[in-house]
This record gives sequence, structure tokens and C-alpha cells, in this order.
Amino acid sequence: MRIPVDQMVAVLHGVLRGTGMTDDRADLCARLFVEASRDGVASHGLNRFPRFVRMITRGIVDVHASPEKTSAAGALERWAGRAGPGNLNAHACMARAIEVARVHGISCVALSNTNHWMRGGAYGWQAAEAGLIGVCWTNTLANVPPWGSAEPRIGNNPVVIAVARPAGHVVLDMAMSQFSVGALTSYAARGEALPVDGGYDSAGNLTRDAAAIAATGRLLPIGFWKGSGLALMLDLLAAALSGGRATHEIAADPELETALSQVFIAIDPSSLAPQDETARIIDAAIAHLHAGDEHVRHPAQRTLETRARSIRDGVPVDPAIWAEVKALAAG
Amino acid sequence: MRIPVDQMVAVLHGVLRGTGMTDDRADLCARLFVEASRDGVASHGLNRFPRFVRMITRGIVDVHASPEKTSAAGALERWAGRAGPGNLNAHACMARAIEVARVHGISCVALSNTNHWMRGGAYGWQAAEAGLIGVCWTNTLANVPPWGSAEPRIGNNPVVIAVARPAGHVVLDMAMSQFSVGALTSYAARGEALPVDGGYDSAGNLTRDAAAIAATGRLLPIGFWKGSGLALMLDLLAAALSGGRATHEIAADPELETALSQVFIAIDPSSLAPQDETARIIDAAIAHLHAGDEHVRHPAQRTLETRARSIRDGVPVDPAIWAEVKALAAG
Repeated sequence: MRIPVDQMVAVLHGVLRGTGMTDDRADLCARLFVEASRDGVASHGLNRFPRFVRMITRGIVDVHASPEKTSAAGALERWAGRAGPGNLNAHACMARAIEVARVHGISCVALSNTNHWMRGGAYGWQAAEAGLIGVCWTNTLANVPPWGSAEPRIGNNPVVIAVARPAGHVVLDMAMSQFSVGALTSYAARGEALPVDGGYDSAGNLTRDAAAIAATGRLLPIGFWKGSGLALMLDLLAAALSGGRATHEIAADPELETALSQVFIAIDPSSLAPQDETARIIDAAIAHLHAGDEHVRHPAQRTLETRARSIRDGVPVDPAIWAEVKALAAG
Repeated sequence: MRIPVDQMVAVLHGVLRGTGMTDDRADLCARLFVEASRDGVASHGLNRFPRFVRMITRGIVDVHASPEKTSAAGALERWAGRAGPGNLNAHACMARAIEVARVHGISCVALSNTNHWMRGGAYGWQAAEAGLIGVCWTNTLANVPPWGSAEPRIGNNPVVIAVARPAGHVVLDMAMSQFSVGALTSYAARGEALPVDGGYDSAGNLTRDAAAIAATGRLLPIGFWKGSGLALMLDLLAAALSGGRATHEIAADPELETALSQVFIAIDPSSLAPQDETARIIDAAIAHLHAGDEHVRHPAQRTLETRARSIRDGVPVDPAIWAEVKALAAG
């Protein structure tokens, strides 16, 4: 089932207005949800929307809160997220990072006390669309056992790296677990086995059974000990720079996951070299990656294909979830 | 066999002086090699030193060259490495990044036309010892097939993330391949199987046989498609920011690997919050990681243990390589 982009935005916008969110904010918030689904990340798009509304209703997400700058030193800033909507907070902080990077060449905005940013890639696209390099990451609740442990104590802390490219931006959006929670949920819903081991079952064995992993909440870090170390470092930096919570201080229940810490870095390559010079370097590397090898994809290549089809034919939706969201709109 | 730190430094210093390197530079260069071995990374310490000297002799590494700033915009700078010694170039650029971050809060120094930085972790320790956060990475020759391909076309592009901590800095130093080339060489030399698949054999199958992987040069990226994407992004950013070469432009022979691109980012958290406040956040997260789980290690924990033993008992050396280096000193 496919729904036109504008129709989806209108429905979500209506639901958000019903929660008390102001018109402009509801528009951007709805667009960010719809664009996730449009680009093939329904797990952090429409499928996540009902939970987002529940978290507003329960008072975990404050629809009226915007981030506030609490301290700054040159190109480095610390902002308080005040429990605002995670996607709006993240969008505001990347916008601020872009603004500061245009002045200083590079910038870093660290954000505390925010909520789940939904699809992290959105803020990479945001930087790339402004012609900049964007690097951002978030911590999460504990869902990955550090290497050597059976107990989830680190987050899968997704990281986004984006670089502008006239022929199509290159945007990497990846969690430090072999599969994101969203991806696991999708595999489990389809009853499909994972292509490689993705985590541990209740007996502590590595498995490709997505439902078994979802039940234990014990995701496998990418590269075993390597992803474990990388996830830890991302958490340390996010908490230290924002002055906010580290993973061990975040509620372990996904319905209560809040007070996250995030980092948004923007770099403006045009301050060093003409844009076409940078574009030539990126284009040549991407061209070499693909040369004679049709099976190789670069980050966001498939996203652009999925996006084009969604714009043409409508955004694919799970009919049950779409019905649930429309009921929210009617309620 | 173990050699006291100072004695090792003196021997390497003598060899470097013999290549024409000036006294101060030879001292730092020798120390960086010895400190790699001291900290348990002999593959990029003593074991790599004979090749480094060969590359000087062949004119690939210019002992007299220092990096030069070619453009700058606020906290973002581009430097030309001029084919200087990779460890000296990297050390100079992280020193510069630290200096600029103390002014702007964050900084980025991008370096083109440099040589192998040997042990990347060194520049993370350098930032942490200055009380800063350090993030740096390098591109490399092509040694990893991108996901979907059998042909090595991306580098394993090591990344370093370091954060200062009074009780012992936390420093992650990892290549985007499941095993670094240095680690593979060590396993192969010991005739030991890898603990997990590390790359492809000549038949294109995943294997734990380090020698077979070293022969094909086809290393497995961490997390399969994920490390493949991450390595690509690191290469794009390093080449685009430095204006230097991307992996596809770097000679595929390790004895000829030169003209690398690197990025050094430093962040000064003390510009936002008192140092003890940041230290408390880091300490609490590390303490939680270990709580009740003696098998869990954090990045650099083992390094500090190895370092303490090397300082007490001498640096472990491979007797054959030590003899080779002493012969270079005598020659």
C-alpha cells in the first residue's frame, strides 16, 4: 500500500497539531517522519509514529520545548534539549552546526536531554543539502553487551557521516550493532532469518533469529570487540561534550528511553577549496568504487532509488500501522 | 627478549641520524617507534622500522620535509605533508589541532601527501595527554573489498578516538578491517588461527587463516557492509578535506604506499565545563562498563598494563628484528 507524500504529511501533521504542537513545528516533525518512510526507513518513520505520540501523551516528549544554548566557546557549543521532540531538536542542532561551520570552517554542537532522533540519516542529508560535511551520533539505551560480557551495557549508538555530492549526496547512517533495532524488528515481522549473526538468544548463543535477539535485547556489535569499543567511545564523547547522560543513565525500556546525548559536527569544505574541486575528488572515488562491479553500492545509493519511487508512486506503508495513525488523526 | 626503552630509542635514533634526519626529529621519530612496541603494537613499532628505513633510502620518505599549511578558514586547516616521515607529520598535525582547538573549542587539520603514520593511537594519546578529545584517521592503500565485490578497492582506514581521563586515558585505535594488517602478520608469524573470520582466501571464501588472507590482501571489513561503508566515508572525508589522494590513487604495494590523506580533529571540553566535571562523566561510564564483569576491557586498558610492564622489564622485541635494526645502526 502506497500513500502520496503530501497526504501522509497532512495526516501526521493533523495528529501532531492535536497534541498541541505548533503549526510550523508539526509540519517539520511530520515531514521528518514521512521522509524516513519515503526513503525506505519505515522503522524510524511511520512505524515509529504511534510510539512517538504515546511518549508525548505520557509527558516524556514535550512538544513545546526547543533546545537552548547553555555554553559556547568559539565553534564548540553545548545545548540543552529540554526533552523536546527528538527529530526537531536534532534538526535544530544540525542547522546550528551548519551555521557555525560557515563561520569557523568546522563546528560542534553537543546536545543533552533530548529524545530519540528517529532517522539519524536525516541530519546527514540536512548537512549535505547545505553543501557541507555532516557527522553526528547519538547514544541510546543499553542494548549491546560490551565484548566479554553477556549483559547489555552499551548502546548501539548510531553514527551518521554525510558528504555533499552534486550527483547525489553520500550519506552513511549506521548503528554500532550489526543490525539496528529497527532492522531487527523488520526481519522479525517478516519471519525472515538475518543474513549474518545479529545477536544472542536466551541461551547466550549467537543467532540469526531476529525475534530471539529482540527478546533478549542483546545485539551483536559490528566487528565484535571493535564495534563494542567504538560504541563506548561515541557514548563517552556524547555525554562528556553535552554534559548529559551516558548510556548507563538512560532508562532501559524503549517506551521510556529519554534524556539522550547527541553530537552534531559540520565541516564546510568550501572554506578551503572551490566546491567543484571537492566534488571531483568525491566523484572520482565513487566512480572507482563502482567500476566494473555492479554489485557494489555506496551509502545512500539505494536510498535515492527508493526515494524516487516513493515520490512517483507514493510512500509504502504497512496498512495496519497506517490505519492506526489515521485513527489517531480521527481521535 | 626485552630491551630497555632508552636503549631502544638510542639505537633507532642512531639509525635515523644516519639517514640524515636532524637530531630533534630523529629523537621524536625513534620515540614514536619505540612507544608503539612498548605499548604492545610492535607491528607498527620496531617490526616496521626496517621498512621505514628502506622507504627513506628509496626516496619515498623525505626525512627533511615538514608539513606546511596551505589554506585555512578559522578552525579548519589544510596542510601539505610533502612526503615527510608519517609519524612526524601526524604528530605535528595533531599538535597543531590541539593548539587551534584551545582557541576555537574544536579544530580540524587535514593533511595531504603524507606517509604511513605507523601507530595511529599515538596521536590519540597525544591529544588525551593534552587534556583534549582527539579524533583522527588515515586512508591507506586498497586492502579491503567493498561489500559486494571480491576486489580490494577500499582501504582499512584506521580511526583513533581518544578522551582524557585522569585515571588513565581511554584511547580506541582500530582499522576498519576485522584485523589490521599488522595483527594479521602477527597471527601468521605465530601460525595461529584468527578467533573469527578475517578475510578471504584465494578461492574467495571467508577464512580464519591469517597467512591466506595476507596472500590475497582481501581483508574483511568489520560488520560486513557496515565497515565497508564506514571505510569509504573516512576516505572521502580525508581526500576531500586535505585535497589529497583517495585510496584508489594510492600505490597498492605496501613498500610504495605513500601520498596518504589524514584528518586530525581536536576538541577541548574544558572550554565548556570544568575538567573534573567531564572526568566524573567519563569515570562513571567506565566504572559502569566494568561493574561485576571482570572480562570486559575498555579501550587502552590493556595498553596501560603492557606499557607498565615494558617500562619495568624492558620492551619485548623479536630477536631477529632487533638484530636487523642493530645491523642498520652499525652499517
